Amino acid sequence: MTELERHPHDLTIAEAGAALRGGALTCAALTESVLERLEETEPLLNAYITVTAELAREQAARLDEELRDGRERGPLHGIPIGLKDLVDTAGIATTGGSGFLRERVPERDATVWTKLQEAGAVLPGKLNLHEFAFGTTSRNPHYGAVCNPWDTERSPGGSSGGSGAAVAVGSALGAIGSDTGGSIRIPASLCGVVGLMGTYGRVSRAGVLPLSWTLDHVGPLARTVEDAALFLDTIAGYDPHDPGSADRAVDDTTGMLGEGVEGVRVGVPRKMLWKNCEEDVLSHCEEALDHLRRLGAEIVEVELPLQTDRGRGMTIIAEAAAYHAKWLRERREEYGDILPRVEAGLAVTAVDYINDQRLRRLFIDETVEVLQTVDVLVSPTTSRTAPTIEEGDDDAELARLTAPYDVTGIPAISIPCGFDRNGLPIGLMIGGRHFDEATVCRVAHAYEQSTDWCRMRPEVLGGDGQL
Amino acid sequence: MTELERHPHDLTIAEAGAALRGGALTCAALTESVLERLEETEPLLNAYITVTAELAREQAARLDEELRDGRERGPLHGIPIGLKDLVDTAGIATTGGSGFLRERVPERDATVWTKLQEAGAVLPGKLNLHEFAFGTTSRNPHYGAVCNPWDTERSPGGSSGGSGAAVAVGSALGAIGSDTGGSIRIPASLCGVVGLMGTYGRVSRAGVLPLSWTLDHVGPLARTVEDAALFLDTIAGYDPHDPGSADRAVDDTTGMLGEGVEGVRVGVPRKMLWKNCEEDVLSHCEEALDHLRRLGAEIVEVELPLQTDRGRGMTIIAEAAAYHAKWLRERREEYGDILPRVEAGLAVTAVDYINDQRLRRLFIDETVEVLQTVDVLVSPTTSRTAPTIEEGDDDAELARLTAPYDVTGIPAISIPCGFDRNGLPIGLMIGGRHFDEATVCRVAHAYEQSTDWCRMRPEVLGGDGQL
Repeated sequence: MTELERHPHDLTIAEAGAALRGGALTCAALTESVLERLEETEPLLNAYITVTAELAREQAARLDEELRDGRERGPLHGIPIGLKDLVDTAGIATTGGSGFLRERVPERDATVWTKLQEAGAVLPGKLNLHEFAFGTTSRNPHYGAVCNPWDTERSPGGSSGGSGAAVAVGSALGAIGSDTGGSIRIPASLCGVVGLMGTYGRVSRAGVLPLSWTLDHVGPLARTVEDAALFLDTIAGYDPHDPGSADRAVDDTTGMLGEGVEGVRVGVPRKMLWKNCEEDVLSHCEEALDHLRRLGAEIVEVELPLQTDRGRGMTIIAEAAAYHAKWLRERREEYGDILPRVEAGLAVTAVDYINDQRLRRLFIDETVEVLQTVDVLVSPTTSRTAPTIEEGDDDAELARLTAPYDVTGIPAISIPCGFDRNGLPIGLMIGGRHFDEATVCRVAHAYEQSTDWCRMRPEVLGGDGQL
Repeated sequence: MTELERHPHDLTIAEAGAALRGGALTCAALTESVLERLEETEPLLNAYITVTAELAREQAARLDEELRDGRERGPLHGIPIGLKDLVDTAGIATTGGSGFLRERVPERDATVWTKLQEAGAVLPGKLNLHEFAFGTTSRNPHYGAVCNPWDTERSPGGSSGGSGAAVAVGSALGAIGSDTGGSIRIPASLCGVVGLMGTYGRVSRAGVLPLSWTLDHVGPLARTVEDAALFLDTIAGYDPHDPGSADRAVDDTTGMLGEGVEGVRVGVPRKMLWKNCEEDVLSHCEEALDHLRRLGAEIVEVELPLQTDRGRGMTIIAEAAAYHAKWLRERREEYGDILPRVEAGLAVTAVDYINDQRLRRLFIDETVEVLQTVDVLVSPTTSRTAPTIEEGDDDAELARLTAPYDVTGIPAISIPCGFDRNGLPIGLMIGGRHFDEATVCRVAHAYEQSTDWCRMRPEVLGGDGQL
């Protein structure tokens, strides 16, 4: 396939941005291409809950005018970005994946959507997710399962499943996801795209429906590390409306991407994050380590605490129950299969919750200490490739390797690193120090640029109209 | 009384420091004076649990040598400073005011004591407190009640009662206290001394027995604002061993003391912090406002939330129960009258605890907003002067005006502002913005320097050998 034959929806954010700025493409044409792609893929994927085609066309027309007037908002100017349907959008339904919030129309935009609009993003629609973002592989009982574009019998992972699937096929060039135990990185891994969870507090969650606010993160899914970095730099920054927001200057994550990995110390926590993985997952991730070594990185075995779920078990259900308490009294029968887990949180004692926070603090301290000896940590993102939608539900297993990053609040990215014997994508996870997304992305970019994985896309709509 | 007739133990830290540096006084002579004062006052006050006279003499001798060698550690060089007996001191019993910890000898120093030793402080002993620092006026069932030096039938307040009493009479020139609902500022108010609670996270609590770690603060009691500021600057600073420690540069609180209050905006939250106070307390605090106005400050009425205990009720008992859980199982019968309150914490649900944290966040936001319109807040420290030891127990009332500062984590100082009709001291509280102890101390200093209150001391050991 040559460059000329590619559709605009196949471009990366960086490529599309260059074409828009250079006049080779218009925002309108890019948006039409994405909307067409959405039309043809949605019957097979169910990635969107709400499509906002008319809004997208209006936005694109206005943004084209701005470009003609010489006004260029930045790297996301004119780029179609989908939003997980728990990000508040004023005037547009925001369901949180919940049945009883189907008609809920927020009055205000979430901070992250305000920032994206200011940056010139175009909204194709609101993306499907698990009910209240609770769970990683169960299908949504109200809006149906999202299908994995690499095999529509399979799950895209979750809870940001719609985000992962849409980015993989080009019904969005990027998407917002949220991550409490892995919900950005798991669908990135299972759908063969890039998912970046910044440091806890890096991206505002104001106006984003919470699951567990000491663990919740908002962040981008995109097709390349560069795209994810551009995207993160756009949405990052202090927000007084999010109590967990960090009052830190926004780094230029993108600017350092090209600096390579010569001399970078890559920590490999084999006992904690490399155990009990599928054979193909392990062999591809081992190859990735070899590859990083050849690129000049130093590979170092490190010891991290073994108990990956420390400080999380009680926290997530108790914080969810606190948020849901009123609805649990008033709308109990309208919950899907997440009900028992949400209700279980009501029974957690404060002492157990507090002890979770204390364990968590120890775990954070130990992790920070290890990160004084290495620059990044590398492991598989998920221990397996996409399960079938029927198999469904082993959340704990799919989030086993990702959740420690939510607990410790350090940043982590998932990038494609190959395919298993069934042609399903495998994800490599790279984590780093608090507020050091720059090094995380730099290592990820060096690997990605010297491999072909990020250019592999699912063969959607082949000759027989099937994915 | 002329300057020459004053005993060394009557000096402020700043005065003693100048005399030591100028050669007019030795560390040994100052320490002897304080130890003599301790000997004569202890039978009446019971301020100390452990006296470390020999250690103090050794320290003083070594510090005199250093001065002779031209080594001067700073403003606390050679100054006798008492420690509330929940501050770990390696090799010296640290009881936490608990009966079953009577024989507990820590292996390591608390960070605050390490810092004080590095600064050249001398330790006369470990100060009495309420059992596990829980409560403000109940007498300690294991080590006896501390008596108020202005009237030995009365309580010095708590839980840092020994700290307040010792500083008032000169059995220490300064003392470490801790404050979870007012435990530094209440004894400062009731004993007629200065108590300074820095911003949450300003002073490390590593090695200090916790009561409720999202509310606990460690800080100084001293005789003047200047002394408290010198003292705070010595013990402040980031400590990775305290999870709540703030990674902020230490300000030079002392350096700005002399800048006066011309143009400073003083907020008066009448509805929240001036209601239901004793008549003499109110009239003296009103006079203090007039005084500040005459000094050039602008007095502004402000509205703060009325519900002062928001976000605290469940927090303190749940966090205490989490810390005490093991002892509650194993040493239950060895607790004093705090037992029902500590045990009540076991029954708090995580949802109630989390909701407390959410209310607290709202309260913090509202308070921070008010502090964008004024530089400081002023009110009485306590609604009343010292209750009798018999009266005892209305903790909620004594902590009513101080606790909101613990909940919001903003700094506050209590300084003397007069005496009631019974000759008991009245405290004025000045609070300010997070990490702006400098302005809080500057306003307090301006008031103090233009009044005589800080020079009033209890007439201890009059002709009949009684206080």
